[in-house]
Amino acid sequence: MIIDGKETRPLILNADGFSIRVLDQRQLPWAIEWADIADAETAALAIRQMWVRGAPMLAVTGAYGLCMALRLDASDANLARTYDMLFRTRPTAVNLQGALNAIVAAVKPLPPELRAAAGYARAAELCDADARDCEAIGRSGLPLIEAIAKQRPGKPVNVLTHCNAGALATFAYGTATAPIYLAHEAGIPVHVWVDETRPRNQGASLTAFELSQHGVPHTIIADNAGGLLMQRGEVDLCFVGVDRVTRNGDAINKVGTYLKALAAHDTGVPFYVAMPFTSFDPLTATGADVEIEERSAEEVTHILGVDGAGQRQTIRIANPGSAAANPAFDVTPARLVTGYLTERGSLTLGDLQRRAAIGHIDR
Amino acid sequence: MIIDGKETRPLILNADGFSIRVLDQRQLPWAIEWADIADAETAALAIRQMWVRGAPMLAVTGAYGLCMALRLDASDANLARTYDMLFRTRPTAVNLQGALNAIVAAVKPLPPELRAAAGYARAAELCDADARDCEAIGRSGLPLIEAIAKQRPGKPVNVLTHCNAGALATFAYGTATAPIYLAHEAGIPVHVWVDETRPRNQGASLTAFELSQHGVPHTIIADNAGGLLMQRGEVDLCFVGVDRVTRNGDAINKVGTYLKALAAHDTGVPFYVAMPFTSFDPLTATGADVEIEERSAEEVTHILGVDGAGQRQTIRIANPGSAAANPAFDVTPARLVTGYLTERGSLTLGDLQRRAAIGHIDR
Repeated sequence: MIIDGKETRPLILNADGFSIRVLDQRQLPWAIEWADIADAETAALAIRQMWVRGAPMLAVTGAYGLCMALRLDASDANLARTYDMLFRTRPTAVNLQGALNAIVAAVKPLPPELRAAAGYARAAELCDADARDCEAIGRSGLPLIEAIAKQRPGKPVNVLTHCNAGALATFAYGTATAPIYLAHEAGIPVHVWVDETRPRNQGASLTAFELSQHGVPHTIIADNAGGLLMQRGEVDLCFVGVDRVTRNGDAINKVGTYLKALAAHDTGVPFYVAMPFTSFDPLTATGADVEIEERSAEEVTHILGVDGAGQRQTIRIANPGSAAANPAFDVTPARLVTGYLTERGSLTLGDLQRRAAIGHIDR
Repeated sequence: MIIDGKETRPLILNADGFSIRVLDQRQLPWAIEWADIADAETAALAIRQMWVRGAPMLAVTGAYGLCMALRLDASDANLARTYDMLFRTRPTAVNLQGALNAIVAAVKPLPPELRAAAGYARAAELCDADARDCEAIGRSGLPLIEAIAKQRPGKPVNVLTHCNAGALATFAYGTATAPIYLAHEAGIPVHVWVDETRPRNQGASLTAFELSQHGVPHTIIADNAGGLLMQRGEVDLCFVGVDRVTRNGDAINKVGTYLKALAAHDTGVPFYVAMPFTSFDPLTATGADVEIEERSAEEVTHILGVDGAGQRQTIRIANPGSAAANPAFDVTPARLVTGYLTERGSLTLGDLQRRAAIGHIDR
């Protein structure tokens, strides 16, 4: 992605060859600050305190943390202990577990003196694989934008997105944002409606930030507004990310995704889920089988921002004494999803199911 | 409504018989403060600066403002001048115009020395008529709550509402909230899911405030969450207010209403629009014929709340430099509306059209 005009990744290996530098996402969009991580304990802290976020970023931060520990002590005991510490930062993060497993698989057969180097090599591969996947996801979605642009030359193609499935969470173009960035790079005029994505406002803060950094025209809207824009014909496509797609094609994503999918279906706007193929989970039957995380009520009743003097402030915005509920995800039924944009192409539910069945899940 | 444990109205005539006291809604939910209005100029200011809000409150504030002017100078010239000043505070507010017209009709035939008293009498009638309408709207919706309560005794009936179509905007029970208050008073357990209603947060601030004051159990949710709650069967009924219902039954209401109506339709939750019959506008064919107000982008990018020290602060919550759009209303197609709760009963679209056609519109 582009930050301050320079092409970079939000996680890079430092010149010392062992520590990493991550974009501190807690500071966004108010400040661009980088944080160094030089040991496994700090990597665990960075995951727990959300210096980094998004499945690929979490996963690779954990992988590098494990390598940092191996550099100091490459014993089986230290490998197991550090794996456990890093895994426990986010026990439900499938990608984190997968990345830790990948490092273990690469180093376990080797004698201790070769383990750290092999681990770092595998971690670098994970970064590059994610970058390749993002670009391929983008290529799957790009023709959708191109086709609309061709129908009305010179006019921007309007894409609506929810939450942040963007470059900040990945090593390249993001997932839902990937076709947008590729279109922008190709000179196709594109404009993004950015759902602010209450209660954590990842749209208004993170997606708007990264689109700004890339110079992609965009407009922040309240989550309530997308339906009206679709009614008016001001949305050509919806692209959203996803946490998991179940066997029947249901998409578990940030709460509110379902409402936008309903509006898209009602108004005839194509609604695509962008995802690495590994987000398809054929072992879970339907969205109703997925437990929805309930987060802190304070995320609804309070909000962080900056005051007129540029100071960060957390203020209460809800009636004092009123309770709040904060489910983090919802379920978009497969019938509302036009297609799934993956690194293996733009797929139908049938494609997803067939490819999973014939063992294409492994990378 | 109840404020600080006492039954009151949010606008009352003072003991002096000519000035009014209004609940200053700019201070809610942070402070309960009343403001006195003793002349037409202050009444206009109160409307313009939103000390009062909601169609009935605006209308009656204007009506009393006109009476205050007549008390000082009951000439035709002053009547016309003051009417014009008050009307221009909100030229699109149909109810305000209607209330001003009602005062003019009551006083114009009279000699100047009788005009002020006649005006005040008419203004008091407008307040009482609104209170009666609210209660009647509540009676139209109450059986819906009662029926669900009977099916599962002891368990609360869950109602979802959007924005504030509550007691704060009216002289009694509000519109969408009226069936809820009547159920609560009747001892039927009821629980309200309160959409926070971005960007102005009328739900989290005003609806939550008034439900708290009445002791009605409620929970604030992000606007994104209602669809999930309906998917889970945690919403029994949706009640919303409305700005206008067009001839074909489309409901123009606060932006985001359409998304909740879609989710209700998709999950089989009854979705009712609560309204005085006068909100039916048979002269406008469809929702597409209504111009949607575009409000300030700052309402999306900035937000007001209180900090830890109880001080009010306005902070920026969106990426600096990003544009924002802020359409205030959307259109809920008639096909998504289960029924219209009016002071004349729970009506179908056919009922609305028939009653309007046979000239029942006038009060």
